[in-house]
Amino acid sequence: MNTSAKRKICVVVHSRANYGSIKSVMRAIRAHPDLELQVVVGASALLDRFGSVVNIIEKDGFIPDAKVHFIIEGETPATMAKSAGLGLVELPTIFDRLKPDIVVTVGDRFDTIPTAIAAAYMNIPLAHTMGGEVTGTIDESVRHAITKLAHIHFPASKDAAERIIRMGEEPDMVHMVGCPRIDVTAEVMREDGNAPNSASLSESGVGVEIDFEKPFLLAVQYPVTTEYGQSEHQINETLAALRELALPTVMLWPNVDAGSEDVARGMRKFREQYPDAPIRFYKNLPTEMFVRLMMRTTCMIGNSSMAIREGAHIGVPAVNVGTRQSGRERGHNAIDAGYDRKDIADAIRRQMAQGRYPSEHIYGDGKAGERIAEILAHCTVRVQKRITY
Amino acid sequence: MNTSAKRKICVVVHSRANYGSIKSVMRAIRAHPDLELQVVVGASALLDRFGSVVNIIEKDGFIPDAKVHFIIEGETPATMAKSAGLGLVELPTIFDRLKPDIVVTVGDRFDTIPTAIAAAYMNIPLAHTMGGEVTGTIDESVRHAITKLAHIHFPASKDAAERIIRMGEEPDMVHMVGCPRIDVTAEVMREDGNAPNSASLSESGVGVEIDFEKPFLLAVQYPVTTEYGQSEHQINETLAALRELALPTVMLWPNVDAGSEDVARGMRKFREQYPDAPIRFYKNLPTEMFVRLMMRTTCMIGNSSMAIREGAHIGVPAVNVGTRQSGRERGHNAIDAGYDRKDIADAIRRQMAQGRYPSEHIYGDGKAGERIAEILAHCTVRVQKRITY
Amino acid sequence: MNTSAKRKICVVVHSRANYGSIKSVMRAIRAHPDLELQVVVGASALLDRFGSVVNIIEKDGFIPDAKVHFIIEGETPATMAKSAGLGLVELPTIFDRLKPDIVVTVGDRFDTIPTAIAAAYMNIPLAHTMGGEVTGTIDESVRHAITKLAHIHFPASKDAAERIIRMGEEPDMVHMVGCPRIDVTAEVMREDGNAPNSASLSESGVGVEIDFEKPFLLAVQYPVTTEYGQSEHQINETLAALRELALPTVMLWPNVDAGSEDVARGMRKFREQYPDAPIRFYKNLPTEMFVRLMMRTTCMIGNSSMAIREGAHIGVPAVNVGTRQSGRERGHNAIDAGYDRKDIADAIRRQMAQGRYPSEHIYGDGKAGERIAEILAHCTVRVQKRITY
Amino acid sequence: MNTSAKRKICVVVHSRANYGSIKSVMRAIRAHPDLELQVVVGASALLDRFGSVVNIIEKDGFIPDAKVHFIIEGETPATMAKSAGLGLVELPTIFDRLKPDIVVTVGDRFDTIPTAIAAAYMNIPLAHTMGGEVTGTIDESVRHAITKLAHIHFPASKDAAERIIRMGEEPDMVHMVGCPRIDVTAEVMREDGNAPNSASLSESGVGVEIDFEKPFLLAVQYPVTTEYGQSEHQINETLAALRELALPTVMLWPNVDAGSEDVARGMRKFREQYPDAPIRFYKNLPTEMFVRLMMRTTCMIGNSSMAIREGAHIGVPAVNVGTRQSGRERGHNAIDAGYDRKDIADAIRRQMAQGRYPSEHIYGDGKAGERIAEILAHCTVRVQKRITY
Repeated sequence: MNTSAKRKICVVVHSRANYGSIKSVMRAIRAHPDLELQVVVGASALLDRFGSVVNIIEKDGFIPDAKVHFIIEGETPATMAKSAGLGLVELPTIFDRLKPDIVVTVGDRFDTIPTAIAAAYMNIPLAHTMGGEVTGTIDESVRHAITKLAHIHFPASKDAAERIIRMGEEPDMVHMVGCPRIDVTAEVMREDGNAPNSASLSESGVGVEIDFEKPFLLAVQYPVTTEYGQSEHQINETLAALRELALPTVMLWPNVDAGSEDVARGMRKFREQYPDAPIRFYKNLPTEMFVRLMMRTTCMIGNSSMAIREGAHIGVPAVNVGTRQSGRERGHNAIDAGYDRKDIADAIRRQMAQGRYPSEHIYGDGKAGERIAEILAHCTVRVQKRITY
Repeated sequence: MNTSAKRKICVVVHSRANYGSIKSVMRAIRAHPDLELQVVVGASALLDRFGSVVNIIEKDGFIPDAKVHFIIEGETPATMAKSAGLGLVELPTIFDRLKPDIVVTVGDRFDTIPTAIAAAYMNIPLAHTMGGEVTGTIDESVRHAITKLAHIHFPASKDAAERIIRMGEEPDMVHMVGCPRIDVTAEVMREDGNAPNSASLSESGVGVEIDFEKPFLLAVQYPVTTEYGQSEHQINETLAALRELALPTVMLWPNVDAGSEDVARGMRKFREQYPDAPIRFYKNLPTEMFVRLMMRTTCMIGNSSMAIREGAHIGVPAVNVGTRQSGRERGHNAIDAGYDRKDIADAIRRQMAQGRYPSEHIYGDGKAGERIAEILAHCTVRVQKRITY
Repeated sequence: MNTSAKRKICVVVHSRANYGSIKSVMRAIRAHPDLELQVVVGASALLDRFGSVVNIIEKDGFIPDAKVHFIIEGETPATMAKSAGLGLVELPTIFDRLKPDIVVTVGDRFDTIPTAIAAAYMNIPLAHTMGGEVTGTIDESVRHAITKLAHIHFPASKDAAERIIRMGEEPDMVHMVGCPRIDVTAEVMREDGNAPNSASLSESGVGVEIDFEKPFLLAVQYPVTTEYGQSEHQINETLAALRELALPTVMLWPNVDAGSEDVARGMRKFREQYPDAPIRFYKNLPTEMFVRLMMRTTCMIGNSSMAIREGAHIGVPAVNVGTRQSGRERGHNAIDAGYDRKDIADAIRRQMAQGRYPSEHIYGDGKAGERIAEILAHCTVRVQKRITY
Repeated sequence: MNTSAKRKICVVVHSRANYGSIKSVMRAIRAHPDLELQVVVGASALLDRFGSVVNIIEKDGFIPDAKVHFIIEGETPATMAKSAGLGLVELPTIFDRLKPDIVVTVGDRFDTIPTAIAAAYMNIPLAHTMGGEVTGTIDESVRHAITKLAHIHFPASKDAAERIIRMGEEPDMVHMVGCPRIDVTAEVMREDGNAPNSASLSESGVGVEIDFEKPFLLAVQYPVTTEYGQSEHQINETLAALRELALPTVMLWPNVDAGSEDVARGMRKFREQYPDAPIRFYKNLPTEMFVRLMMRTTCMIGNSSMAIREGAHIGVPAVNVGTRQSGRERGHNAIDAGYDRKDIADAIRRQMAQGRYPSEHIYGDGKAGERIAEILAHCTVRVQKRITY
């Protein structure tokens, strides 16, 4: 590793979720006197269909050192795997050019594993955020596989840190720093006195106009890759529940996982059939904006981890649908519902009756980014890993 | 999973080492009344430079259902990662066509991880042999990552089985069956009364003729990917030791890892410089033949795992060079040497003085293949994994 | 080439346009006693977003021997090229397995060139339909490049045949057979006594209902790759013209070229802004259904080659917008308009005043498929090509 | 195209042959006040097995802006096509970053076509050297296909220029500049008074030492892709002829085409069988060195185009073996032989009796590089091509 000059830290961002999860780290690296930030942007973060996250990244002042398209269309289990493969074909060419001292990768997705494998094989120390957690979908397997490839671990919770160590990672390489996504949440909560800017929210998105001064729901539902083939049915149940409640709702289009096309099809058909349903649909919302919506929504619905991570911090009532988050450490704000319209609608009503929850700090205190930058600046890393038992 | 008809078990073979490690399993699957064998052959197993293992596979009566080239030339850390990526681009197309009920993958190499990722993302239960072991090189990380992706574990030793369970895998999915490579060894030891067929051995290979009725050494040394850049030096030390000892030696060309070109270059230069050194070089030897050579060699030298796995079973004196096998469970037959010609030569002399060791059954009893086939035929698997803690 | 047994003819279908253009050939090959049909389906022909053409292919009784996803999302010039590359990575694996005697490829698209290159490098005789024509976009270059790679040419018109020979191809390898797309058209014209089945047409598609017993327009507009960046403006002009005319209109979503996302965005925005505009949007229509619509539409608008090829045969009044078809041999039925709403609207009004044109047989007589099958069954091909001058 | 600033000209070099063919152009671009040189190096130009051409490029002072590995091992027709595909997956990412105004590609090989397709689809004007020539192998098809994709043509001979125009390219885009390889030859001939530096030549290479003050032969023989499967036989005939003549011989290992492994295997077996044959083998020689050897060799043997292009300019007696160069415009210096040891040996003897030929300037006068740079600096290009008839 380069020791005399600034350490080059290459952060790889491949989706809108990635960016929200690593943005505070990128800022802290950029601000650190001993670090040089490199940014690689690829996969769905480059795609219009997912809100062109790269544009937000650039507007935030981060200039990508490399951009790489590698999403193979289809949104089947096979194309998800193939896309990971294509990323793994191209990332080594990029790392060979940028010669980073450390690569930082986020989370557990099919667009994350190629980053991990490329760095590991190229003997570049790999830092990993959000490892050690437990959920459903294939992400559960992939997250732990990445832990076994990573050299430096930045878990977001105490449980996650302990799990990483139990998996045989060296304890001094495991740094419980909290979740960088909470950094953004905490910042928004400190700064925000006002309602979301309705004007900017009605520019983007499609569907009915929403008055953000009044009660509204917030829905985000992704496919569950290990339940592939059932996604359209699953979203239909949620949409039916929303239609029954007939409350103004902000809803995000799904991400790029296997089954997303099924979710999107369900949503498109719903729009055709019920053009007057009081829902507004967004391809992407800047993280800060989304947090503001969470701070004000009556209830959050779906299976996004935000309902559970940021949700506990904010205390937003949430209905978690299905298995995608099952096993994830959580607070009191979220209650579960099956893939069943009645079940979902009942749970939403219960949460509406309940109102806001007290804030719980499970995933950190809002200072993860700075901690991570500081550790990256000074840690020593052995390229050759060894399981501890 | 297909329950009424025979279960389709897809075994993926990507190198000569793979084939030796899974051949007895393939035979047992083929022979099992409730199983249908599918065979995918790819990567270096297709290449003339590594002895066209596919030809041996076909001669053994296994007809590949798919062949796929994905080795990107260069033998650098970057091309090793890119090759894995290319494999991951193509394997899903193949699995989509073959629709296996279970995929079987072997070991811990860059040509193994794409199989694991493809199956995992495609919700195809993944069985993994030789997990849970400890070694050096990047294989150490990759092996454990594959464990976290696999659904059914077939570790080769008790230690390895315990390690897999400690990593959070469900105990009832961990089957300690022994190493299928020992199956081949045990069979050869039972059947073999004679010296290797010198005629067939002098047809293949290049360099001096060797009289296998007299004492000879057996050398196999691979690059250590995490010590990339030092491979030519490392092989030179071993070659210098062999030159000093001046005994007839059988030596294998290296595999396709990062740094192999450096090892091969060292060997080619050595051949140019010392054309009369009493060494015969082989691109590949059928596993049975190699085991026969192990049964008769005075001492085995290098860093192949065979010296430690099969070596303990056979009791062959072995000198293990460098870090590649460090941490691996072993018997008494192997002693260590650094990357130093004097160190290596001394160790060989000590082993020559010692002579044959008693057989130790660390990696199984020679019945792994049948056990694996039986378990594959009847086990139940949940596609959705969950860490146990 | 296989001479004793049936010749294996591998037809590669990568888009909805491909299939319409080769379907009659596939039927004729399947029916030919000396030929065996192999079918490869890939690229956008597998995608839901483009109407899952593979489902139609299977419903027509063709069982794909291989399916391969290779569309890299982005719809930029770069991803179009990358997608062609990915196709070229996978097709050789497929051809190696299927071992066709002749590969048949269609047209001039980015999903066609990998087929041509794979076959040419693999010494598999390549037959090419629809070569020798002249148009705009990058297709113009690619079409002629494929001609230089192909061994057997099946141009659709006399002009095209002459152009192929002038490019230096051997005259006895150039067979003027007519356009297989006209085969379908001719068949529909012979059989069809009735209006399109409104019921089935209102099941698929989104937007207003259309009464096909009354006058309606038919619009298909694709991006022009060599004018990348202007596609949204271009579609907006056409949409504005359609809005002004306020006639019931059937409109297709664009294909998968660079700029398609821009066209689709323009269309989506239009739908949001003018939800009551009398347009119904389709992802795909079976070729026969589309031909039936052409037979009844008051006027066809856009830049599809169908307006010019099938259009001349049917005599449908057409307004050809922009440069995509410029240079293409045509009949009297199509008049031109620039990318200008007034220009387009005026041209449509002129065509509405004019009414149906007499049929012109420029692109064949409807028997291309049978002629092609017969030639494929008996032609002799030299793998080594040589320019004739 | 960028008009105010310096035009960025991106030269893509993918093999040792490429570099020899474009080096004088690269120097001229670098020296031109209105041009900025970008260099992409990939494929076999990065590989040790082919002499690590990238090292020579860097020693010549050209710093690659991108390096990209894309040779898929196997050297079969299928892997040749797949490699082209992999190049086409990665080059768009590179061009997207470098944003060249013009891309320059050389010749007709499987590592050239991805450059051509990437640039064409990305609407980057493509300049092509060495188009319009006639030869055997698949290169014959690919060369003309690239012509149909290219915007600016730099043929090396009058015949070639005329052929390009006859293929329908616009005459004002066809610049007969001569062959840049002759630039290097002419320069060496001007400067060189001395024999090749025997010292440096005996450092590299393997086999017997050669005294370059005495008569020696120069042999280079490549596989013929369209005669795949016959390469080992073909090289064996040439080697047998060389063995019969028993003259000191400099011989190059083959390139990376389909069948190269067969040629190399033949050569390796020959070396094992006849270790004392007076042949020295080289993986690569700098172009200038090779030209010096051509100036002094008694006779050149094989199927390299250098025997015919540079050969005519130098007047070196040459024996052209087989079909690879068939149809290529040539001078009097080369005579043909079939794949037959007796035929080849006889032809060599005839050439040895004949001695040096007068120089013939068929492929230019040695100023191609400067002409090309000047044209690139000032030409206007239409991205939308159109065949002229």
